[in-house]
Parts: sequence; C-alpha cells; structure tokens
Amino acid sequence: MKNILIIGAGKSSSSLIKYLLDKADIENLFLTIGDLDINNAKQLVNNHKKTNVIQFDVFNDNQRQLEIKNCDLVISMLPARFHIEVAKDCITLKKHMVTASYISKEMQALNEQAKENNLVFMNEIGLDPGLDHMSAMKVIDSIRNNKGKMLLFESFCGGLVAPESDTNLWNYKFTWNPRNVVLAGQGGAAMFIQESTYKYIPYHKLFRRTEFLKIENNRYEAYANRDSLKYRSVYGLDNIPTMYRGTIRKIGFSRAWNIFVQLGMTDDSYTIEDSENMSYRDFVNLFLAYSPSDSVELKLRSYLKIDQDDIMWEKLVELDLFNPKKKVKLKNATPAQILQKILEDSWTLKSDDKDMIVMQHLFGYELNNNKKQIESSLVVKGENQTYTAMAKTVGLPVAIAALKILKGEIKTPGVQLPILKEVYEPILKELENYGIIFKEREVPYLGYNPNHVRG
Amino acid sequence: MKNILIIGAGKSSSSLIKYLLDKADIENLFLTIGDLDINNAKQLVNNHKKTNVIQFDVFNDNQRQLEIKNCDLVISMLPARFHIEVAKDCITLKKHMVTASYISKEMQALNEQAKENNLVFMNEIGLDPGLDHMSAMKVIDSIRNNKGKMLLFESFCGGLVAPESDTNLWNYKFTWNPRNVVLAGQGGAAMFIQESTYKYIPYHKLFRRTEFLKIENNRYEAYANRDSLKYRSVYGLDNIPTMYRGTIRKIGFSRAWNIFVQLGMTDDSYTIEDSENMSYRDFVNLFLAYSPSDSVELKLRSYLKIDQDDIMWEKLVELDLFNPKKKVKLKNATPAQILQKILEDSWTLKSDDKDMIVMQHLFGYELNNNKKQIESSLVVKGENQTYTAMAKTVGLPVAIAALKILKGEIKTPGVQLPILKEVYEPILKELENYGIIFKEREVPYLGYNPNHVRG
Repeated sequence: MKNILIIGAGKSSSSLIKYLLDKADIENLFLTIGDLDINNAKQLVNNHKKTNVIQFDVFNDNQRQLEIKNCDLVISMLPARFHIEVAKDCITLKKHMVTASYISKEMQALNEQAKENNLVFMNEIGLDPGLDHMSAMKVIDSIRNNKGKMLLFESFCGGLVAPESDTNLWNYKFTWNPRNVVLAGQGGAAMFIQESTYKYIPYHKLFRRTEFLKIENNRYEAYANRDSLKYRSVYGLDNIPTMYRGTIRKIGFSRAWNIFVQLGMTDDSYTIEDSENMSYRDFVNLFLAYSPSDSVELKLRSYLKIDQDDIMWEKLVELDLFNPKKKVKLKNATPAQILQKILEDSWTLKSDDKDMIVMQHLFGYELNNNKKQIESSLVVKGENQTYTAMAKTVGLPVAIAALKILKGEIKTPGVQLPILKEVYEPILKELENYGIIFKEREVPYLGYNPNHVRG
Repeated sequence: MKNILIIGAGKSSSSLIKYLLDKADIENLFLTIGDLDINNAKQLVNNHKKTNVIQFDVFNDNQRQLEIKNCDLVISMLPARFHIEVAKDCITLKKHMVTASYISKEMQALNEQAKENNLVFMNEIGLDPGLDHMSAMKVIDSIRNNKGKMLLFESFCGGLVAPESDTNLWNYKFTWNPRNVVLAGQGGAAMFIQESTYKYIPYHKLFRRTEFLKIENNRYEAYANRDSLKYRSVYGLDNIPTMYRGTIRKIGFSRAWNIFVQLGMTDDSYTIEDSENMSYRDFVNLFLAYSPSDSVELKLRSYLKIDQDDIMWEKLVELDLFNPKKKVKLKNATPAQILQKILEDSWTLKSDDKDMIVMQHLFGYELNNNKKQIESSLVVKGENQTYTAMAKTVGLPVAIAALKILKGEIKTPGVQLPILKEVYEPILKELENYGIIFKEREVPYLGYNPNHVRG
C-alpha cells in the first residue's frame, strides 16, 4: 500500500483526487486528505474506503510531522508560501513531494538535501506553470534533436468561460481567483525580447499593447506577462532572439479593462475614505474631476475619450457601474477590492456555467537554412463546476506525477520543474486519456523580421 | 556668546550661513559648520572669524556628541533620515534643534522629552514645508479670528527657472535635486477633496489633470501633490470641503512630461539590460513595439497620438532623445536614472542662470453669509548660483527661527512645525527684509460649486 498525503482540498484538488481514487484499487493507494475545512474534501471523496479525510493545520508541527511520517509522498495544494515547512519535514522524514507552485528561493535551497536523500521534489506541475513547461519542452527538445536552432518562442495561456456559457459583453467570467484577475500585470513593467530587442511595457499601457492570436479557428488577444525573460535560462534558450509570454482573453476585453486601469480602479495600495457607504456611482466619481453639474457618465466619456458608438461603454453599463443606489458595503476597502466586488456581481459563474482553458505556443526555428515554425495548441473545457477545466489542467498533471514518482517511473532526485523528458513525456501521454491533448502543426515562419530589415 | 552647530553645508545652507554670519557680531554668535566635505563650507564662510569649519561625520558618535555638547542649538540640514541620532543627543545634552525636514515618526516620539526639558525642536521650517505653513496659518488664523468659516484651501509651490534664464521649450531647468523631479508623483495616487468629494488621481494620469493658476500676471499650471489630506488636521481644517495642494510648472510642461510617464521612462523599479552601451535612441525604442522598418520617431508619434503640429514633439527633439550616437553610459541603470541623465544634458543651469520660487495659496471662506476669497502669492528670484531662490527660501526661515529660539523669542517647547503665531509672525516679518514677501489680496470667491448645484 502506497500512502499519499494531500494537503489542501480546494477548487483545484477535485480532478487530482478523482484521478488518484480511480487508480486506488489497481495501484493500491491510500489517500489522506487534510484541510482546515473538511467539507469540500468529504464531498470529493464521497466515503471512498481508500481515503481518510482529516482536519489539518499546516502550522501544527506535531500533526504535520506525524502525517508526513505516515505517508510515502506529499502533495501540497496550498498557496506557495505554505510549502516550506512541509518541504523541510519531507527532507527529514525522507518523503517525496509534489506542488503546482513556482519554486521559491527557500524551496530551491533544499535541492542538495533532496538529491542526497534521493527524493523527488517536483514543482510547477500544474497548468501555468506546468503544462506550459511540459508541452513547450517536448517541442523544443525535438527541434534541438533534429539540430534545429530556436529563433522564437511565444507562449500564451488563459482561463476563460466556455463558449456555451459566454453570456456577457466582456466575454469573460471569473473562473479562478478574482483578486488575481483584478491585480494582473501590476508590480512592475512587463519585459520580453523581440528580434534581440528588449521591450518594456509599463502597467498603464499593458492592456493597449495586446497581440492577436488564433486557436482552433477562434481569435483571441493576449497581453504580455510580467517577466518573459526568466524562462530563457529555464528552457535553455539563453540567446533566443524572441521570447514572449502572454495571458489570453477574448478580443476586446483588454481595451475595456484598460478603462479601469486608466481611472485608477485597480489600485490596491490605499483605502478609500468611507468606502462602506459609497454607491457604485460614487466610486466611479472618485476618479473623475469635480463638477457641480456634469454627469459621471459624461465626465468619464470625456476624460477617456470614449466615442458614443464604442461598445466599451455598454460593457461598463452592463456592470451597473453608474448605479447610485447599489452600495459598496466594504469597510476601508482599496479601489481594487471595490472593483472586484462590482465585477463579482456580474462575472460569477452560474451553477451550470462551464470554464475553458486555452494555451498556445509558437516555436520558430532554423533548420538547414530554412526558417520553420511549429504551433502547439490546447483547448480544454470544464465538465461542471467541480471538474472544471482549471481543476483538470492543474490537478491531473500533479496527480499523474505523484503516481509516477511513487512507482519509480520518475526518479531523478532534487528540487525540479517538469522540463526533463523522463517527466514530460509519460505525463503528456497519460493526459491525452483525459482529453488534455496538444495539437501540434507546422505553420509558415512568421517572426517579426523575416527580411532582416534593420530596425 | 551663543554657539550654533550647523550640520550639512550643501546647496541649501548658503543663505542660512550668510544670515547668521551677518548677525554674528551684533548677536554675539559663533558658528561651527560640519560636513563630510568641508570645501563648500569654507567657501561660504570665507574665513569669517566667528566660524569654525570642521569635517564632520554624523555617524561618529563621539564627535557628534562632543560638538552638540559644545553648542547651544543644532541646525541639521542633512536629509531627514540622518536627523534622529542628532535629535536624541539634543535631548540628552539639552540643546534646541532646527530642521527643514518633515517630522518623522521617530522625531515625533521625542515630543514629550523635548517638552520636559523645555527644548524647542522646530521642523518643517524651510520652503515647502515651511514658508507654506507659515504664510497659510497667518491668513487662516486671521480669518478664524474674524469668525470666518474656512471653505477652501488650495496651495501651490514650484521651483522654476527665472524668466531671464528661461531658454528652452520646456520652460524648465533643474533648480534642485533632479532625481526628485523625475520621480515626482510616484508611490501612490494623488488624494485631495473638492466640495466634500474625495478625488484620487493615479500616477499615469497625474500630468493630464493639471489646473491653471495666475501669479503676478503670469499663468502657470499645477499637478496635484501626493497627499493633500494630511494637512487638514495640521491646520485645524478637519471639515473643510476643499483642500488641494499642487506643484507649479510653466504651462505645457506637464502635458509633455506625460510622454515620459506614458512610455514608462520614469520607472525606477527595474534595471535595463546592457544600459551602458545603449544610445538615447535605443532607450526610447525599449518602450515602443518592435518593427523591422518603422522609425522610432513614427512609432512614438503613432503610439501616443502626437500630431504633426504639436509643440510637444519639438520638446522631445530638443532633448536629443532620438540621437543614435549619444550613449547612456550608465551601468545597470533604471529607466528613471537614464531619463535623468538625458534631461541633465539639457536642463542643467548655466553659471549665470537664476532660479525662481513661486508659491500661491487660495483661502475661501464664509463671513456673515458672504463667500469671500483671499489670494496670497510669493515670487522670489535667485541672485546667482550660490544665493539661489531655493537656498534663500529654505535657509532664511531656518536661520531666523534658530536665532529667535536662542534669543528666547520663540520658546514653546516640543517637537513642532511653524504653525503657532509666536513662530510664524516674527519670522514672516523678518523675511520681508530679505525680499520674501507674500502679497495678499481679496479676490472674488471661486470655489467649485458657487450655486450649490447637486453634482
């Protein structure tokens, strides 16, 4: 019997737990699922006999060490900042560990100890980071094996609402943490490199510098992620002339979102005086010049130069942004918190809504003096509000990795992310059984400067 | 003999030292002037017999305590973060202290001890903060004494180049710390209140939300300062409906400066790759979309929608921003550092250039059911590059306050700023002898909503 300790049974754990339970008999697994709140976990396991659901506090040293001692592998689905004590115990108690989080400095510092103890500490094996690493490295490795030279790598990912549930003017609903959506892009300029030229976009221009892309005959847009440059060394692409990573939205979202950015509504750095008793309309008016007589609507149109026939305006109206009666009802709230509340009124998924994950990579390369390009695309739709596309694409790679580590099929020790063929090849293959299938195809090389004009 | 220890003999100390030296015989003063670099101090005192210039390190505990022990009052002209050790010694050794800096939390914490020891710790007594407090409180107190009710307080200040030295398209040169000019307005939204409505302007809109004002028949513009609200309690104006503070520039400056903000050139939060070997033109191109063929000029015009006949464009050209040969020559520089360097090429004062300080307050109030307004304006020009308007308006109030504390004319003890009549009245009077004269006049009440329309 192999014992797996799963810490955290939130939204992203459903598909993960289902996968492991479905294999529990044949692979002889037993799952201990710990969370502060055991209700969600209980629903997910539905009295399955190979499980034990426990109330679990990651800061309770005794409990944490006892449970880790009793298992063979730990999966932590908590936010990244809660991993480190678990990871240290895993070193001491000689257990493997799997997370979907970015590798923190503290986690990286355990690399040598993990190697000495022959332990696999697999991280960044969810969706983004995770599926992106694996599907990209598969193509990059194959281009390199054929002696191709990488010229361009662009990678896009987005969590969207499925077309059948796409019912608002924004073509968007919250399929994941709304706060992260409101704060997206903040904290510094977006950085990337195109044809060996570094590019920096400040936050207040980010949503006006989108690029279009096409995935399975649907057009989307993408805005640049914060730091596309750090992946150069991770993927062994240090000298690649073009490297860009972006977040996918339906077309027109970013131009309308830019209204909030321009007004200052996404600011999370200060609190608004008497926010609680303010109406949505009052909130908008905070960011507009004072006038004793002009309407909030006209002031906003004039300030941001929104034409009368611009659909952006209808998007704002749809959010009930100008309602003088609806109250904010949040004490000492930041603009970002208030905006989030207003958006949640309109963008919360209904019980029968489905989500959708889209991902696309573009790989430009040179082979025998020919420039070529491969496009790799993924579209995954959610089944319902439990087995969402997000839960599947985050949880299944984690679950598959955990099982393969336990079975000794993934065995390179150390703190790592899934860029080794040993890791990505079997996992991508297994994911295909669950409808997570990257479609790769040759396309004409685009690049940004096919004729080598001097820019 | 009264001994004064002056710590810091930088640009702002010239008029301060001259004032005290001119009074040294009649008031029986002796000045000890300490700085890490004694050259500037030596030039300023020119072998005056009532002075001793010493090399002084504020972090050398022995030296600091010895010099403070030997004096009757300490003036610290160092940046605010260096005051606290001096202030603690002044408590221990029972000496008065004067600074032109904002009162820090650490400084405020010494209030009780200063009072117990009957010591005056006078702060914020330079130009801004300083002259603004004094000239404002004079009018506010007189309105209150007449039983008037304050409705509006707006206050503007700017360090500019004098008209006779105003030789570039920006109508601006660096008359003070260039870094502060480049970073002005960053770190959070500007906050103020108009007709009881709070207003918040995000940084990226700050320079497009300027207001016009007129001082001595010249028109200026002003952008909002970070936090106008904190002065409500300082001035006893907690319930005032309109409170606004701004920074003065010549008209058109802010609209052109906004180009740098929009591009992201004022960002000080990250460093540019290989900044050293980049040309000015390359620097501009970092913030523009890649194109193999379009010029940097056209990309910038198109991106920020600058018309062909917009003088803003000539302002950029004047800075040599598009020069492909001029190199940045700064290692690991932030965009803000590079921009500062480019601006210093053009905006550094020439040896015969003069600076100018402009300040204006507007006081709206109600008296006997009549709405009234007082305007108080100040214009000070520099004499030369030593006795600048900035040095006079910062240094003279400090010097006058120090002398009046020593003579017992200012005696209310504690950590304070110059808002008491005991302080501002004699100092403003003495300043008039040095050409620092506020012109007050009645003007029609403007307000923002004279007819009480519901906004």
